[in-house]
Amino acid sequence: MASIYGNRLQVSIFGQSHAPGIGCVIDGLPAGEEIDLDVLSAFLARRAPGRDPFSTQRKEADAPEIVSGLYEGRTCGAPLCAVIRNGDQHSKDYSEIADKPRPGHADYTAHIKYGGAQDVRGGGHFSGRLTAPMCIAGGIARQILARRGIHIGAHIYAVNGVYDTPFDPCLVSHADFCMLEDKSFCVISDKKGEEMQARILAAKADCDSVGGIIECAVTGLPVGLGDPMFDGMENRLARVLFGVPAVKGVEFGDGFASSALRGSENNDPMVMDADGRPQMTSNHAGGILGGITTGMPLLLRCAIKPTPSIGQEQNTVSLSRRENAALTIHGRHDPCIVPRAVPVIIAATAIGILDALLDSQNAFDLCH
Amino acid sequence: MASIYGNRLQVSIFGQSHAPGIGCVIDGLPAGEEIDLDVLSAFLARRAPGRDPFSTQRKEADAPEIVSGLYEGRTCGAPLCAVIRNGDQHSKDYSEIADKPRPGHADYTAHIKYGGAQDVRGGGHFSGRLTAPMCIAGGIARQILARRGIHIGAHIYAVNGVYDTPFDPCLVSHADFCMLEDKSFCVISDKKGEEMQARILAAKADCDSVGGIIECAVTGLPVGLGDPMFDGMENRLARVLFGVPAVKGVEFGDGFASSALRGSENNDPMVMDADGRPQMTSNHAGGILGGITTGMPLLLRCAIKPTPSIGQEQNTVSLSRRENAALTIHGRHDPCIVPRAVPVIIAATAIGILDALLDSQNAFDLCH
Amino acid sequence: MASIYGNRLQVSIFGQSHAPGIGCVIDGLPAGEEIDLDVLSAFLARRAPGRDPFSTQRKEADAPEIVSGLYEGRTCGAPLCAVIRNGDQHSKDYSEIADKPRPGHADYTAHIKYGGAQDVRGGGHFSGRLTAPMCIAGGIARQILARRGIHIGAHIYAVNGVYDTPFDPCLVSHADFCMLEDKSFCVISDKKGEEMQARILAAKADCDSVGGIIECAVTGLPVGLGDPMFDGMENRLARVLFGVPAVKGVEFGDGFASSALRGSENNDPMVMDADGRPQMTSNHAGGILGGITTGMPLLLRCAIKPTPSIGQEQNTVSLSRRENAALTIHGRHDPCIVPRAVPVIIAATAIGILDALLDSQNAFDLCH
Amino acid sequence: MASIYGNRLQVSIFGQSHAPGIGCVIDGLPAGEEIDLDVLSAFLARRAPGRDPFSTQRKEADAPEIVSGLYEGRTCGAPLCAVIRNGDQHSKDYSEIADKPRPGHADYTAHIKYGGAQDVRGGGHFSGRLTAPMCIAGGIARQILARRGIHIGAHIYAVNGVYDTPFDPCLVSHADFCMLEDKSFCVISDKKGEEMQARILAAKADCDSVGGIIECAVTGLPVGLGDPMFDGMENRLARVLFGVPAVKGVEFGDGFASSALRGSENNDPMVMDADGRPQMTSNHAGGILGGITTGMPLLLRCAIKPTPSIGQEQNTVSLSRRENAALTIHGRHDPCIVPRAVPVIIAATAIGILDALLDSQNAFDLCH
Repeated sequence: MASIYGNRLQVSIFGQSHAPGIGCVIDGLPAGEEIDLDVLSAFLARRAPGRDPFSTQRKEADAPEIVSGLYEGRTCGAPLCAVIRNGDQHSKDYSEIADKPRPGHADYTAHIKYGGAQDVRGGGHFSGRLTAPMCIAGGIARQILARRGIHIGAHIYAVNGVYDTPFDPCLVSHADFCMLEDKSFCVISDKKGEEMQARILAAKADCDSVGGIIECAVTGLPVGLGDPMFDGMENRLARVLFGVPAVKGVEFGDGFASSALRGSENNDPMVMDADGRPQMTSNHAGGILGGITTGMPLLLRCAIKPTPSIGQEQNTVSLSRRENAALTIHGRHDPCIVPRAVPVIIAATAIGILDALLDSQNAFDLCH
Repeated sequence: MASIYGNRLQVSIFGQSHAPGIGCVIDGLPAGEEIDLDVLSAFLARRAPGRDPFSTQRKEADAPEIVSGLYEGRTCGAPLCAVIRNGDQHSKDYSEIADKPRPGHADYTAHIKYGGAQDVRGGGHFSGRLTAPMCIAGGIARQILARRGIHIGAHIYAVNGVYDTPFDPCLVSHADFCMLEDKSFCVISDKKGEEMQARILAAKADCDSVGGIIECAVTGLPVGLGDPMFDGMENRLARVLFGVPAVKGVEFGDGFASSALRGSENNDPMVMDADGRPQMTSNHAGGILGGITTGMPLLLRCAIKPTPSIGQEQNTVSLSRRENAALTIHGRHDPCIVPRAVPVIIAATAIGILDALLDSQNAFDLCH
Repeated sequence: MASIYGNRLQVSIFGQSHAPGIGCVIDGLPAGEEIDLDVLSAFLARRAPGRDPFSTQRKEADAPEIVSGLYEGRTCGAPLCAVIRNGDQHSKDYSEIADKPRPGHADYTAHIKYGGAQDVRGGGHFSGRLTAPMCIAGGIARQILARRGIHIGAHIYAVNGVYDTPFDPCLVSHADFCMLEDKSFCVISDKKGEEMQARILAAKADCDSVGGIIECAVTGLPVGLGDPMFDGMENRLARVLFGVPAVKGVEFGDGFASSALRGSENNDPMVMDADGRPQMTSNHAGGILGGITTGMPLLLRCAIKPTPSIGQEQNTVSLSRRENAALTIHGRHDPCIVPRAVPVIIAATAIGILDALLDSQNAFDLCH
Repeated sequence: MASIYGNRLQVSIFGQSHAPGIGCVIDGLPAGEEIDLDVLSAFLARRAPGRDPFSTQRKEADAPEIVSGLYEGRTCGAPLCAVIRNGDQHSKDYSEIADKPRPGHADYTAHIKYGGAQDVRGGGHFSGRLTAPMCIAGGIARQILARRGIHIGAHIYAVNGVYDTPFDPCLVSHADFCMLEDKSFCVISDKKGEEMQARILAAKADCDSVGGIIECAVTGLPVGLGDPMFDGMENRLARVLFGVPAVKGVEFGDGFASSALRGSENNDPMVMDADGRPQMTSNHAGGILGGITTGMPLLLRCAIKPTPSIGQEQNTVSLSRRENAALTIHGRHDPCIVPRAVPVIIAATAIGILDALLDSQNAFDLCH
């Protein structure tokens, strides 16, 4: 009841940063779905580190072994387990980190929760590395969704207060997502992207880090997905999105901005389209009303806090000596996790959407 | 798998706006807890409508009958069921609303999801009225938490772009909550509160509505509550908070604002206090790291969209005639739901916190 | 996580024997299903007490009020709540029973579990009376299943060692169930039924009670229902059936008898029928292989222990005085609960089957 | 929602007989528990095949790799993943078995459920081989329970109608379990064991198989474990036990035999022991009343059907040709699975008990 998500599709994430491996078990996948492992690898590569000056230099093979659940290239109804071996580990001494909790990390809270038994190496189960298996599960979910015309894309919406052009809430499309995937720095406005990169490099030069916002959209959703109250689309997606380390806020549609609007501005009027199907002429709701999809693009944003691992000396405590202490974190760290988090947010969203779809009487097959 | 929340404490909410009743079943309450029904009624009264010019004039008795689960004034280990009868209903004709979905409401999405079988009267199960049983469950949870020194309070943080003074993230206390409860308009800065009220009345005069933000804090939490990944405190609380109608965004600590910060600004340094206990000297994390409580106050904010029911004519469609249509909503509606939503956000938070506490090995009793 | 059952259909049972009421909330019912309340009442009447010399003389109105979830006679997608008021209660003194646990009852275990806070009156939440809301949920599920050609029937298979003719495992049919429903004592062989009734009356004359076995069958099930391992049909049904008080054993198909067979006797050979559909020529498996339905009738048996409330003096302890004590239970008690448990076993089975059906991709609609 | 078990302790089983591997993820293990991998291996060896004339000759290394969840020999709070590689596989042609479902197996039901996409090799996810990861999870649970004085043992209670001496329901003890573990054929009465072995060898000589019954007991349980209705000990344990392939019946205490008793025979009288603690003088209830443990030994029995894989020619169908067909199964198969199933039943019981213990407010720590 912790690292497991989902009602119908149950994704169980396991592993620690320096354990023999990390991975996931996906229970409840529909049977008979072809999974293209090359497409999956390409998706995983989007979050892999060591590709640019903004990310940690740790090289991860991140090639998952599919231990079970596939038969002749298709899901076979049995739970799918994928394992990634942890290879490039620095076998350094972790005694300092075990004693001096890093500010902004889960070191102290895990120490108290697990009575000192937690795996402190590299953040253990709380490491950002655990987003790799999340991307496996999400990458598989994404293929199943794409086959039904449901596409998910995301971009870096903000870094350190520099904002990208947002998605068009009504017209965002699969073509936009393809365009974004082709970019090495995943923004709509390349000019804003250059500003963001300058902010990241400036922070890096200061041994510091920056946060940002990721905007994600889902197109092709049927009307009627999601359930009232605690299993609405917002609830389901927020639950999986807050499972991505460093996410501190989630909003849908106009989100926090809607709090400043009037009802007459925020309501989405309806019209009948040429085919006699109801449409909204705006999409302040982000494609969700009463927890249920409206058929308009689903839109969400996640706030990502700045990477807590920074090279500057910080104030902390020594748990053993019960006294104040100074800590300087060495090693490889992303000055900004946001670019690598883009596929992770897509993956988390894909997991949430597929679960809702499987959970929704009939919707799954109506999507074919 | 919809109107049920929780792992250990399972709250099931039932009812429609114009059904014979609404209510909740709470399974998993610890046995032997005294429940003060007068305190509960006082808490429910905070969300009751018809008390001021900002809320609907519908009079609700809202006196819940405790059908089961209490014995001699204490929880007895059996599920607690509470029912509120639906009394003051206008037996008007709902055929127009059944055919013309109200913009910003769940009318259209529910129509598609339930194939036309949904209860359209007054919004059915999607009505804001369903927050009354949420307040019953939360009001009971709150008493159990208070007995263990855990207190929850909230205030109107924003209305239509006017912002209140925020809680002090480190020093917010039970005394602040008591002060806020005594106010008829629940803000820290009464001056800002007056501005907010002016905005609400202006919107009302225009047959319009406004949204806002509620800030909520929890004090007295032990360190170590919550679980990694999908059962972290953010995940748990977001799941229950998005169950409150009109919530479109949830953030913890600095939330979206942290996206603009650097790591050196956002990390909370630690110091050892006089009693040899680690403390943070700031609280950007909102009391949660790695999904687990830090012992600092837990802080969250919820964006509330403007009430979709407005008196202006709006564009919609006729589902039966498959053509465009105009709709003017009559009847009693809150020009701003935010003041009445304050106890609801407190209730939802209380439910999430008590569930996490019961779910946490030992923590529950350590709180005594 | 106690009185709630189901994955997709979540049935929450509440109430105590002498609380204001008992009832259930059913979340996840498909929308648009007509519920015939007269048919439901007739089903509830089958478990109602006070109808014959074998059952307690307590008169229960047992007329449930549907508080929510129905709109114009059909399920509307919202959770359905039904409440039965507790009327005919003897306001006797329960102090003796609170101090002297009744052998064979949950008095002692509940006392320890709930630290003395449990509702001791009439067995509280552990009372057989709580099978009434189970019959409401099951009676509703049964109507939805019957509409799809899935029928459930049961008979008294044994009382105190006297055995009825079993169902024909291959040929049992809806017609058999109708025939059984028309009988006041629900057996296939009336001769055996007379013997059973003699045993019950003999026990009653001795201020004693007897146990028995109920056999239940489900016809019309599609092939492919149920999931591997922990969500197989056996797992699902056992979980709900052991929720019926006094059930101490559950078996499927040949069950315990299969343990004495050879594989060549127990395997069910397959043949192709005239329509080119595979069939089994025997049904030792009780319609389940690998947890998944075979298309043959599903067959199960439940062992019901003798009613623990007997009029003879029994040895127990005084919890307050910490000494041995004698106890004579007065009041109205069934000398044999088995006849009234027949509809309860049907109800529990219906709940389990409908949940599995809703949980099974496509199967629900394939049944139409 | 299939191969996952548990409320607090969530065990997810994955793998197919001929996939690269099989294994389990255990989420929710308490942190800081030492796990002795040698003790675990010894436990796994009890179910390993190829040791005697009664079991299949397939050699399984069955040495699990602990991929995550352990740190310095202790559970660290993160999910524990263990993988067993599938080595000794015969890469034979499975096209016949894919077309001709084996009677008594899940071949046909899985074929329909998964639309022909299931992994047919060696039974896929339905293979008895999947009990190996169940034994890993159970073996770990067992060590955690033993540390708290809770012990679990089992014996072959019946084979093909030959019955062993049952456990003494009141006096069964850890010493009995140790005695049984030392035996190569796990019975109380060696004389009966010889008869059983003769039955197995006779069946083997006839290319046939036999079934049996396993009796399992748990000692050292606190009073008050388990929850009412659907999370009682019977419900919880039945759900996990029916996850063991071939189990067709589960009973507790006197189980089906209690159906023939009178209440005066079946009720367990209470007495106060010398230390002023209530005890039962008999244990017909098998240590459970109202779903909650009584403090007496918990007793259960599982009916195991005869191994469906037999060497005799059997009648089945050709799915592709839609005609009758004959099938002769070749290869290595246990003529009686019961001896190897003994540790599996222990494992399943251990999982269910540990979950209930973790789920029970306080009980876990009271056990220390």
